Amino acid sequence: MEPAIERAQPHAEEEEQHLSPTARLAHFIRHTKPGAVPPSVRHEALRAILNWIGCAVGASRHETVSSALRAVLPYASPARATILGRHERVDALHAAMLNGITSHTFDFDDTHLRTVIHPAGPVASAILAFAEQLPVRGDAFVHAFVLGVEVECRIGNAVYPSHYDAGWHITGTTGVFGAAAAAGRLLGLSEQQLVWALGIASTTASGLREMFGSMCKPLHIGWAAKNGLYAALLAQQGFTSAEQGIEGRRGFANVLATERNFDEITKALGDTWQLSENSYKPFACGIVEHPAIDGCIQLRKLHRIDPSSVARVALCVHPLVLELTGKRRPSTGLEGKFSVYHCASVALIDGAAGVAQFSDERVRDPAVIALRDRVDASVDATVAEDAAHVAITLRDGRSLEIHVEHAIGSVARPMTDSDIEVKVRDLCSPILDADQIETLTTQCWQLESAADAAALARATVPR
Amino acid sequence: MEPAIERAQPHAEEEEQHLSPTARLAHFIRHTKPGAVPPSVRHEALRAILNWIGCAVGASRHETVSSALRAVLPYASPARATILGRHERVDALHAAMLNGITSHTFDFDDTHLRTVIHPAGPVASAILAFAEQLPVRGDAFVHAFVLGVEVECRIGNAVYPSHYDAGWHITGTTGVFGAAAAAGRLLGLSEQQLVWALGIASTTASGLREMFGSMCKPLHIGWAAKNGLYAALLAQQGFTSAEQGIEGRRGFANVLATERNFDEITKALGDTWQLSENSYKPFACGIVEHPAIDGCIQLRKLHRIDPSSVARVALCVHPLVLELTGKRRPSTGLEGKFSVYHCASVALIDGAAGVAQFSDERVRDPAVIALRDRVDASVDATVAEDAAHVAITLRDGRSLEIHVEHAIGSVARPMTDSDIEVKVRDLCSPILDADQIETLTTQCWQLESAADAAALARATVPR
Repeated sequence: MEPAIERAQPHAEEEEQHLSPTARLAHFIRHTKPGAVPPSVRHEALRAILNWIGCAVGASRHETVSSALRAVLPYASPARATILGRHERVDALHAAMLNGITSHTFDFDDTHLRTVIHPAGPVASAILAFAEQLPVRGDAFVHAFVLGVEVECRIGNAVYPSHYDAGWHITGTTGVFGAAAAAGRLLGLSEQQLVWALGIASTTASGLREMFGSMCKPLHIGWAAKNGLYAALLAQQGFTSAEQGIEGRRGFANVLATERNFDEITKALGDTWQLSENSYKPFACGIVEHPAIDGCIQLRKLHRIDPSSVARVALCVHPLVLELTGKRRPSTGLEGKFSVYHCASVALIDGAAGVAQFSDERVRDPAVIALRDRVDASVDATVAEDAAHVAITLRDGRSLEIHVEHAIGSVARPMTDSDIEVKVRDLCSPILDADQIETLTTQCWQLESAADAAALARATVPR
Repeated sequence: MEPAIERAQPHAEEEEQHLSPTARLAHFIRHTKPGAVPPSVRHEALRAILNWIGCAVGASRHETVSSALRAVLPYASPARATILGRHERVDALHAAMLNGITSHTFDFDDTHLRTVIHPAGPVASAILAFAEQLPVRGDAFVHAFVLGVEVECRIGNAVYPSHYDAGWHITGTTGVFGAAAAAGRLLGLSEQQLVWALGIASTTASGLREMFGSMCKPLHIGWAAKNGLYAALLAQQGFTSAEQGIEGRRGFANVLATERNFDEITKALGDTWQLSENSYKPFACGIVEHPAIDGCIQLRKLHRIDPSSVARVALCVHPLVLELTGKRRPSTGLEGKFSVYHCASVALIDGAAGVAQFSDERVRDPAVIALRDRVDASVDATVAEDAAHVAITLRDGRSLEIHVEHAIGSVARPMTDSDIEVKVRDLCSPILDADQIETLTTQCWQLESAADAAALARATVPR
């Protein structure tokens, strides 16, 4: 029999209504029972965690994390927590920071579409590092993750879009609440301590959109993870904050946003779940290019297309596609991400548009360039943003066409579990052996029955 | 002969004018020579450092820092840097954080009056902890401190008052720049690296005024110190940020303030010095009470008043005094700070209004209460904010009066070096032996000729 979905302390509901948003969240974090979370939401948590760990392992050799590691290593306490995908070990606070950085370095992590928050990074990075310090059961870990994402995204809902429009990188600023909430749950904090943890999170929230395009963008996620863990640890020891860190007159929502709606925090809290609105990027580039890539990969698979047989590729796309990603002749991997022509070419040649397809080498590959120059794109305002039409003319005169109504990864057509597995395999293959990736994936799906959640971190260390 | 005051690279001046504020500051931090700083400013730095270290040692047993230490100790790398006034040692990043906390716990640190920034805490806490990691000569230390305070206060000038009015705790948000600048100078960062360090500071700046009254207020200073040190260390390793962290469209000044004036950053940079506008609190309570306290202490000293001989004390003060500190019957140390009656009583009995005069015990002492209840206060709108009239009637009928035109510690009547020494002795006496305080004070005044600045930190460890 399916376990009944139960609300936390239903009798206290009326009393709860009188609490301020900060206090409501503290109550929610402290009292929500695992049984209150629907199985579909728990499963979404596993998908988010798998996607997150793949992104973190994949970027674990990137200069962004290597330079950060060089900077902090002389100050880090050794041998306690794993840097995902690496051999070095550091203290849990620095592991939270470094894993937060790697999880966002490729900008390939999950997205809460309504707020453009990348929910998993701050929360998972904080609590996995913490779990290596104090043992945490897998089910408790997943539950804390669900609660952390809920807190993070609800605070995001309350201040979006004015907060983001003002220039705040919302994953950095709301991520610290998610990390504090999840770590606070695992530490068994009291409601008063959770109010303080959320208060400390409020007053350490940071991250400016000015930093987009620099290493500071992924730093924001690491910072949120580390600061959220600090907040929970400080609160546990009786370190006080203001009581209304979120909604107070000079609290987070009033100071960092010009408009805010606190109902978004409290409305149906414990009944609806933000993880249900989480999505995953199938391709390592801008979302507007995804429908065209999807069409090319589908056609390639359906017709076993040999790229050398392609005479011409005609894309018909939403106007934003050429506005944002119309670069005709990209010369670096980064520029390749802003070229729908390059995207179509690698999609047809490699059947993929992962991290490997956006290396400098791949963008400069003569075969990729040759096909890229045979791609044309026209815009049509009647094509939806998540749609595209792809028509391929082969050298033998045959014509192949596909209309993608909803790109893979969109809300209407989410990536399947198996799609996410493939993505994670692609991300991890430069770092881990195939059997290690297999084990990591299995451990992730089975996380709720793990005796020790931290085994997941250790499974990412290369042989 | 007095050494000539030289500007940094005068030939490059014209070129500098075209740089953005962030780049100008990076140039200033990198190239300003010690000889360019007037002796009076260097001496003000020593006064600020002495005042800072006294505040930090004085609060080193406070629950604020003890709880923070309990929280971070399991994650701190051991045995590298001193927590001022304590035996425990932690890594430099955590030492910066903990010393920043203690320096502001009593709210007794220095004040840049124009912006209400407490300049020394973030800067000195960052670089003294750093100096225990890598040896730093005393003169280099003082110079880095001067530059750090300059950067911090100029950024503050650029965004004050709209930034503060919006709800930001300006010492937290600008302190991180000061700490990054000072640490960056000591690390010998290039201009590009300094631009990144200031960028990382921009995107980690935080601290909400909502937190006033909680332990998070002093946390902001520790956070600024720690984050500023992080910023410099990350930038040294090539960790990039946006190029215009301060003035960019979505940078610090535009996102965290509704009005800003970048001229305040660049105008006469290297020619005028913000440390010249620094001030020190003589008494451990609100500044509005200082004139009355000053008057009571002066009368006591002049006439060797025996408190039991006092029949009545009549204060005549600015209206704000009773509005903010009119508590007739305080019952805790904290409430005592909001009672000008208590202040006058302890000033006459103890000849002081330091930390000891605002303990719960002192506020509840029958002798203090008895005299307090014989104090009256009347307001007069013609009395200036830094002035007060005190009239004492003795039991033998004699009448003693004094008019304080400018309270000690005001701009017009700054604390003397000897006043600061007395204050520091008062702060440190519960923690250090008298000869240790004497040594610490001497080391501070002679800091510029010290071979190792970190000796200052070690001098604060109790026997």
